[in-house]
Amino acid sequence: MRRMMQQNVFEPIGFIESCFKERFGTPRQPGLVPSSWGQLRLRPELNLSEALEGLEGFSHLWLIFVFHQNMNKGVNAKVQPPRLEGEKTGLFATRTPHRPNPIGLSVVKLDRLEPGLLHFSGVDLIHGTPILDIKPYVPAADCLPEATAGWTAARPERTLQVEFTTAAVSQFELCFGAMAARAQGAVKELLELDPRPVFYRGTGDNPNPYTDTYGFRFDDYNIVYRMQGALATVLSVQPWAEYLASKDRR
Amino acid sequence: MRRMMQQNVFEPIGFIESCFKERFGTPRQPGLVPSSWGQLRLRPELNLSEALEGLEGFSHLWLIFVFHQNMNKGVNAKVQPPRLEGEKTGLFATRTPHRPNPIGLSVVKLDRLEPGLLHFSGVDLIHGTPILDIKPYVPAADCLPEATAGWTAARPERTLQVEFTTAAVSQFELCFGAMAARAQGAVKELLELDPRPVFYRGTGDNPNPYTDTYGFRFDDYNIVYRMQGALATVLSVQPWAEYLASKDRR
Repeated sequence: MRRMMQQNVFEPIGFIESCFKERFGTPRQPGLVPSSWGQLRLRPELNLSEALEGLEGFSHLWLIFVFHQNMNKGVNAKVQPPRLEGEKTGLFATRTPHRPNPIGLSVVKLDRLEPGLLHFSGVDLIHGTPILDIKPYVPAADCLPEATAGWTAARPERTLQVEFTTAAVSQFELCFGAMAARAQGAVKELLELDPRPVFYRGTGDNPNPYTDTYGFRFDDYNIVYRMQGALATVLSVQPWAEYLASKDRR
Repeated sequence: MRRMMQQNVFEPIGFIESCFKERFGTPRQPGLVPSSWGQLRLRPELNLSEALEGLEGFSHLWLIFVFHQNMNKGVNAKVQPPRLEGEKTGLFATRTPHRPNPIGLSVVKLDRLEPGLLHFSGVDLIHGTPILDIKPYVPAADCLPEATAGWTAARPERTLQVEFTTAAVSQFELCFGAMAARAQGAVKELLELDPRPVFYRGTGDNPNPYTDTYGFRFDDYNIVYRMQGALATVLSVQPWAEYLASKDRR
């Protein structure tokens, strides 16, 4: 066997522009927030526009990407995925970003193609993610309804109920205009999944009894919500620049 | 946006041992030859055995690999996939090995786990393929029956009828013993797909009228078959070492 032990060097073909701007508030798997949006802009100097021809016939794509915000250099053989609530399992039985090679795999819905630019929804990728490859989703090869789901089978993804204050609904309209319903939908889909780290949550039968307020950046806005037991209430939406300025004043 | 334009360097976590030993006779997609077999041996010096824990609950895995036999350094934006019979399409609308980053993605069926060793079936990977990552196949995220299949939708995969001579059947039994039925099944599944390059085939309505004999290495054996129109007849199975020796004598 010819062993290619030498290192493999890959350069991004482009970068993700996404409504998710920071790790907190980015979904952990694709498809969980179908209303989310993102785009991939191919690096123009690579002259790859023609390479997208024919993709318009596929509804979904695989993106192979680099977990670029993965600053933790060490890799542990066992990890604690959020849905296992503290239990450990082997890293290869999970999609954790902390892998020997920090390569990610996401399927997204292709909404629209422009030269050198792909628009999609259902993303779980953070803004700025480097993309190594695009592959068509081929249902005959990729969709295996008979596959068994291991530890992910019985874990409910959506554990929270989400409400919006009247003020927040008006702010979505002011901030997002024609995109307001979609943006509000994306935030609802996201919060239902409980983006908080496990140690903030309490347990399933005994949710964290404390009332806490959280904020995260979504698109160019700061979203603030309050947790009470298993209820998340979105309180406000504010332009990110305004939020930063108000923070500086304090 | 922080642009990580620098190169990403990845090292294999292990290498594939497969029944497919050369490019000719290796299926072009996973799952097309369900009787095929392969295994992944993790590099022992990486101490990743524990990282496999929990994988036994999943029936299928994704393998992210390097197209290491891809010697053609140039990348063309448009390619001619075999099933398009001469038509061109953008490389990102295909799974061609000739990509800006030669990264492959295959789903395989996990048959059995040993410490540091994974046995699977339904492989399309050539012996020696470097593996960069293993991910569990999560049907809730990865199986999209509603996805549209682009140009792959209407193309029949299995175009040939396959027969075995009585002599070949006996040779499968002699060569593969308890594995004879599986090996014969894998060869049948493979040849039904017509592994020949497009220019040897003729067209769908007008198959190549010539009678030709082809050989390829499968596991440790040389398989010889004859093409007549759309019929492939397997003529013989011979240990690879014997075949090599006989070739040297000529």
